[in-house]
Amino acid sequence: MSTGNSLGAIYLGNDETRFLVWAPFTDRVEAHIVESQERILLLDKREQGYFEKVTGGVPAGSLYFYRLDGEKEYPDPTSRFQPRGVHGPSQVVSPDFPWEDSHWPGLSLEKYIIYELHTGTFTPEGTFDAVIERLDTFKELGITSVELMPVTQFPGSRNWGYDGVYPFAVHDSYGEPEGLKRLVNTCHSMGMAVVLDVVYNHLGPEGNHLAEFGPYFTDRYQTPWGAALNFDGAYSDEVRRFFIENALYWITEFHIDALRLDALHAILDISAYTFLEELTASVQRQVEKLGRNIYLIGESAANDARLIRPREYGGYGLDAQWNDDFHHALHVMLTGEKKGYYQDFSTVGQLAKAFREGFIYSGEYSPYRRRRHGTSSKDIPAHRFVVFAQNHDHVGNRAGGERLSQLVSFESLKLAAGIVMLSPFLPLIFMGEEYGETAPFPYFVSHSDPSLIEAVRKGRREEFASFDWQCEIPDPQDVATFLMAKINHGLRAEGWHKVLCDFYHKLIRLRKENAALACLSKNSMEVVGDESNKTICIRRWQKDSEVVIIYNLSDKEITAAFSLPGGMWQKLMDSADKKWQGNGSAIPGQISSNGEIALTLPPQAFVLLGKEN
Amino acid sequence: MSTGNSLGAIYLGNDETRFLVWAPFTDRVEAHIVESQERILLLDKREQGYFEKVTGGVPAGSLYFYRLDGEKEYPDPTSRFQPRGVHGPSQVVSPDFPWEDSHWPGLSLEKYIIYELHTGTFTPEGTFDAVIERLDTFKELGITSVELMPVTQFPGSRNWGYDGVYPFAVHDSYGEPEGLKRLVNTCHSMGMAVVLDVVYNHLGPEGNHLAEFGPYFTDRYQTPWGAALNFDGAYSDEVRRFFIENALYWITEFHIDALRLDALHAILDISAYTFLEELTASVQRQVEKLGRNIYLIGESAANDARLIRPREYGGYGLDAQWNDDFHHALHVMLTGEKKGYYQDFSTVGQLAKAFREGFIYSGEYSPYRRRRHGTSSKDIPAHRFVVFAQNHDHVGNRAGGERLSQLVSFESLKLAAGIVMLSPFLPLIFMGEEYGETAPFPYFVSHSDPSLIEAVRKGRREEFASFDWQCEIPDPQDVATFLMAKINHGLRAEGWHKVLCDFYHKLIRLRKENAALACLSKNSMEVVGDESNKTICIRRWQKDSEVVIIYNLSDKEITAAFSLPGGMWQKLMDSADKKWQGNGSAIPGQISSNGEIALTLPPQAFVLLGKEN
Repeated sequence: MSTGNSLGAIYLGNDETRFLVWAPFTDRVEAHIVESQERILLLDKREQGYFEKVTGGVPAGSLYFYRLDGEKEYPDPTSRFQPRGVHGPSQVVSPDFPWEDSHWPGLSLEKYIIYELHTGTFTPEGTFDAVIERLDTFKELGITSVELMPVTQFPGSRNWGYDGVYPFAVHDSYGEPEGLKRLVNTCHSMGMAVVLDVVYNHLGPEGNHLAEFGPYFTDRYQTPWGAALNFDGAYSDEVRRFFIENALYWITEFHIDALRLDALHAILDISAYTFLEELTASVQRQVEKLGRNIYLIGESAANDARLIRPREYGGYGLDAQWNDDFHHALHVMLTGEKKGYYQDFSTVGQLAKAFREGFIYSGEYSPYRRRRHGTSSKDIPAHRFVVFAQNHDHVGNRAGGERLSQLVSFESLKLAAGIVMLSPFLPLIFMGEEYGETAPFPYFVSHSDPSLIEAVRKGRREEFASFDWQCEIPDPQDVATFLMAKINHGLRAEGWHKVLCDFYHKLIRLRKENAALACLSKNSMEVVGDESNKTICIRRWQKDSEVVIIYNLSDKEITAAFSLPGGMWQKLMDSADKKWQGNGSAIPGQISSNGEIALTLPPQAFVLLGKEN
Repeated sequence: MSTGNSLGAIYLGNDETRFLVWAPFTDRVEAHIVESQERILLLDKREQGYFEKVTGGVPAGSLYFYRLDGEKEYPDPTSRFQPRGVHGPSQVVSPDFPWEDSHWPGLSLEKYIIYELHTGTFTPEGTFDAVIERLDTFKELGITSVELMPVTQFPGSRNWGYDGVYPFAVHDSYGEPEGLKRLVNTCHSMGMAVVLDVVYNHLGPEGNHLAEFGPYFTDRYQTPWGAALNFDGAYSDEVRRFFIENALYWITEFHIDALRLDALHAILDISAYTFLEELTASVQRQVEKLGRNIYLIGESAANDARLIRPREYGGYGLDAQWNDDFHHALHVMLTGEKKGYYQDFSTVGQLAKAFREGFIYSGEYSPYRRRRHGTSSKDIPAHRFVVFAQNHDHVGNRAGGERLSQLVSFESLKLAAGIVMLSPFLPLIFMGEEYGETAPFPYFVSHSDPSLIEAVRKGRREEFASFDWQCEIPDPQDVATFLMAKINHGLRAEGWHKVLCDFYHKLIRLRKENAALACLSKNSMEVVGDESNKTICIRRWQKDSEVVIIYNLSDKEITAAFSLPGGMWQKLMDSADKKWQGNGSAIPGQISSNGEIALTLPPQAFVLLGKEN
């Protein structure tokens, strides 16, 4: 690499700015400052296709384009801010911010209880500042980390975020970069971590001019969402640098605690030393420099334990990954759905395996994929898996965007909460899940290119045609579709919503305070699934504390004998209790066991028993 | 998988044959027996798209096609023999053979000294039986294993072998399957192993009907030579089965000792559990069953140490791989060439690194690839690398197909021999190299489709246009091009050819008999490269024995001081000696060292000194 300086227009203070951009096939690059004072600035050519210039008279707030070979002008691929959208000029941004989190050590991975939110629909205002005003709610609930769906510049004002085209720029409608910094700063002051969802597998379809600057993309592979990024071909070193600098940028300049790496299975890279390995190694070096806990959490459909295995064992060294198998097995238990990827899931034993191992598909034949799928994750610690009963994808990738609250009974919602929150994995809840939000979370965009808009509509219809969904698909481009996704915080205090919210609150408190629940280890856990009863019985223990959780996943009341170590057990939680708006429980507050206990559990109920040793 | 039976038309004895073929999108599969007694045989549909039938009245030697859905007829994808070429019927072959190698334990990997040959051009006859008649030559030379370039059915009668389209069928012009068995049997009786080159990255362009049977190919990836194989998409389990059965077929039915897996970098597979891992695991299981040494040796340009790292450390568990870096660094030292991939190599230090580590590119920027390349192989044992001064590729992929004997001096040929044979890696020589064969080894084919022939010619011209080669390119389709590749065994006894051959013989004997040379360990080796002198000094030691080899890679006589542990050293070999047709050596037969020694070495000379402790 030609220069150790950061990519972008870096504001150095005193109206001085350093421009650095990669354009390897270009002879001449100029920065065209369009505001406040128009001028054209010729950049100096550096090695490996970089262009660089430090210049005075460019204060923070200046707007500019890059002009390539004296011809076309484009925003900066590493733009820090696009105040006028993806087609407008880039802005020079001062990195200064009055941080107050110098004592924040980061959160240790085992303590992550994640709340995933979409900035645009989480509040009426749809801004970072509006999120800040709601942080008390998370804190009260017991949430330890806020995960933001991608916040980078996408076309228009409405988007899930995965159509971002300026990976270094906070979206203009969410607030300036300082807005995100304020949010992080406030979270840290409240003892909460911030996870940022970043997309390193493709760029969005509109306003994406990276290919004009250099070979960021390759036609050797395809992704479902657009051209694949060039992580292994000629010039890929510099493409990797772009994305690795991006990761370091969020971590370092925005004090982000963890990155959620979107769809890693769509990063196609046959290098001996893959982009992912280089990314984890680079972040690790930065972590050592910064001296606080920082994590990389992957999303991947590959069921590849290599991703989360340490590098010394040939792994890629990610800290954790989302476990879709857990979600799918649970979802099928709750809904009985069989379409699309749900066809691979049907048994209690599968969910029990997810508890025991992590991946359910660890080499078994997957009817959905029509091939064997995955590797064993038996050896992977529990805290390397993020689990959820819902997330933006599994809600939003339904034709109607229905949440679980629209699909299953109140008892099932509590059961889902209990399965996720009392698991030894890192739990994630999707905004509003904690009180049973009823608004859908449909797919929405706000592109400006009519043919693209039509393509998105068509793609959406075709996607669900193959799934044989029956309901109507909201128009992704319609502002009403976006608005219907806004969540209704008022529900939180109303009727069953409040009960559910209290239920989540109680579960989270138990998870934190009970030593057997707080310790995320597969090694002090025993999982017994019973296919005929549709029950799962989980025992977890620590030195002084032991719990047994019995889940009835069926829609019938069941009475059965469960193994329960001898001694006096306390009922710590019972989802069927009237206080949780259940139909009442037959299980007493104290149980004396001599090794086995007969219990009656109402449909979709669960009970948590605890014992101090 | 639906059935544990082997794919193909398996002759069971007593005129009974079991047909098993995979055709998942086909409703009806018939075996159309065309000789000796014509009949149509309907196969029974099995699970996962298989069709199977055991039937009498089909003796070995019967010829058949498969008829799909009552329409088109094609040879069997797992045909054991195509006596009338790629477009003719498949033959039922009896697996019986009077094997005499039941006591053959296989060769341990460290003992491999490999002779690579092309069956069609190694002898005037171009058959396995003609190879058998030459085996004495190998044995005398000290060769321990014969490596056959691919022998499977390709279109026409002339081909390097990489255009094979029936991976289970021995090519009809090389002899019947029994011919190959006779060759293996004879090798084993002489104490030599047989390595077979197999191609699992693509199939040839003519006579390839696999796509008519099932989704063997994918359009998600491309290879330079044709459609990529479907190792990770829907139905890939059965595609993998096809190739894994192929590997087991050669090992088990033909008693092959090692497979050389062609161009692994062109097997594109993003599965969590890759085809390669499944292949190594499957072969490992078979090895345990057969109880003899069997190896998988990969060819890969990826410089990915993962391939040859044990599976318990996250590797793919191949036993060894070809090390092109070693070749390229040596070739550049000898020829000064700078074109194409040779541009990445220029220093003595690179060759020294290859001796020390294996891969030269272990993450460094490669100007040829325009990106960083490779991973470190420091931790990989020396016996996991195959090295060579020539092979079919680096000779044949030149416009004129010139061997080293046509490019460099006699002194350089001896130097190359010394570098390869005295290395701690597995040495490979390409047929004729041992006596400085002068015939070229140009690329040749014998397709029948005129547009394909023209495409091959054009591709060849374009390939070398980009390399800026100046010489004329022989027409690949012309029979004369094939004939010019035939080697001239008579040369072996003539003039400098005989000297070179004796030189190789002596090197091989030293390699086997000297304990310090026989032990293939990087840990008892010290390599010092001197860029200014262009020398490499290598010390290798065992408990009782120690050697020092000093190579002068420059075209100048050099006098320099080299570190030589104290004591009395014997000169074991000196390439400048008059007995090797050198210009004479100034180095005495015995050297007393007190830690350092000043030596004069003629251009391209090397000396091997030994000491018993």
